[in-house]
Amino acid sequence: MSEMSAFERLEKQLALIVEIDQLKAVLRRTRVKSDDGRLENSAEHSWQVALMALLLEEHANEPVDIAKVVKMLLLHDVVEIDAGDTFVYDLEAAKLQPEKELKAAKRIFGMLPVDQRDVLMSLWLEFEAGETPEARYGKALDRMLPMLLNYHSEGQSWKEYGVRYDQALTINGKIEKGSALLWEKVQMMLSEAVEKGWLKK
Amino acid sequence: MSEMSAFERLEKQLALIVEIDQLKAVLRRTRVKSDDGRLENSAEHSWQVALMALLLEEHANEPVDIAKVVKMLLLHDVVEIDAGDTFVYDLEAAKLQPEKELKAAKRIFGMLPVDQRDVLMSLWLEFEAGETPEARYGKALDRMLPMLLNYHSEGQSWKEYGVRYDQALTINGKIEKGSALLWEKVQMMLSEAVEKGWLKK
Repeated sequence: MSEMSAFERLEKQLALIVEIDQLKAVLRRTRVKSDDGRLENSAEHSWQVALMALLLEEHANEPVDIAKVVKMLLLHDVVEIDAGDTFVYDLEAAKLQPEKELKAAKRIFGMLPVDQRDVLMSLWLEFEAGETPEARYGKALDRMLPMLLNYHSEGQSWKEYGVRYDQALTINGKIEKGSALLWEKVQMMLSEAVEKGWLKK
Repeated sequence: MSEMSAFERLEKQLALIVEIDQLKAVLRRTRVKSDDGRLENSAEHSWQVALMALLLEEHANEPVDIAKVVKMLLLHDVVEIDAGDTFVYDLEAAKLQPEKELKAAKRIFGMLPVDQRDVLMSLWLEFEAGETPEARYGKALDRMLPMLLNYHSEGQSWKEYGVRYDQALTINGKIEKGSALLWEKVQMMLSEAVEKGWLKK
């Protein structure tokens, strides 16, 4: 088997970096308060959730390899370039999403040298499965961050999409698997959101 | 000395995560090709350069602690919330930037519990100083990424700001300190950009 040169590897890696630039055009349902309420994109979300993982590491339920968590979070949304973002409260669309995302992961990570493709694919699958301490903690943050931003925007997307308290409680329940303390805080914020009239009872 | 509770620590950490949301509104000079050529913001740039660090680790001149590089890159631009972004070719503005950024770093990281503030401040200062293998490699990527995107947008910002080949060569020269191979590739791309008429000789 002929080995790829360092330069050939670099060419493939750079092509992927240019390809994933498209994540900056994938829009989510969260609005950016500091930027006139425009919709947030998945690239800037990925930055913020990765940084959140670094900052809140001490609150994970189990010890985590934080470098692995950060890698997972930087990678987890790149499949949306092909598959689009699914709103967490859109349960119908969520059913079709795993298949679309797996296909996207194969195409996108397949642009890399084979050894690197396998490493990234395996990280991505581990995150999706949510069964390791790193994946559980990472998924808790990915769930909590939009909730936190939404709370600090006076419940903007709850109001915009008519989300109810019981729905928010169910959707955010996964946070407990990653961090009991974060889940405690989230429950407090959701109760406050009801009191403030941002979330329907 | 009274210890802060885990919950008090969390409150401070969450306040920082909400504060840095503003980085999504700090605009750079690079245009996002996939999103109608709007200006890129520093949050999405931070995501892409951190992921780039993961993908190109094998090309660093010296072995690097990749987790440290990624942390530095996720953090390096948060000071722009207070200090703004400086265009790499604006040498006058660049002179005033270090002082403004240091003040910003002190305010922003100062929102955290003291132990965590010190760790992040030290990482940020290490990156700025550019004297460790991690900082050199991280800075090389931070320089190369806008150049790469610009090349793939037919030299948009070079044309928009009338940048010359010799200026681009000087500004991007720092890349060599982090990776000789990336610098080789950058020189090739700059020569091609001249041939294609995207960069003035």
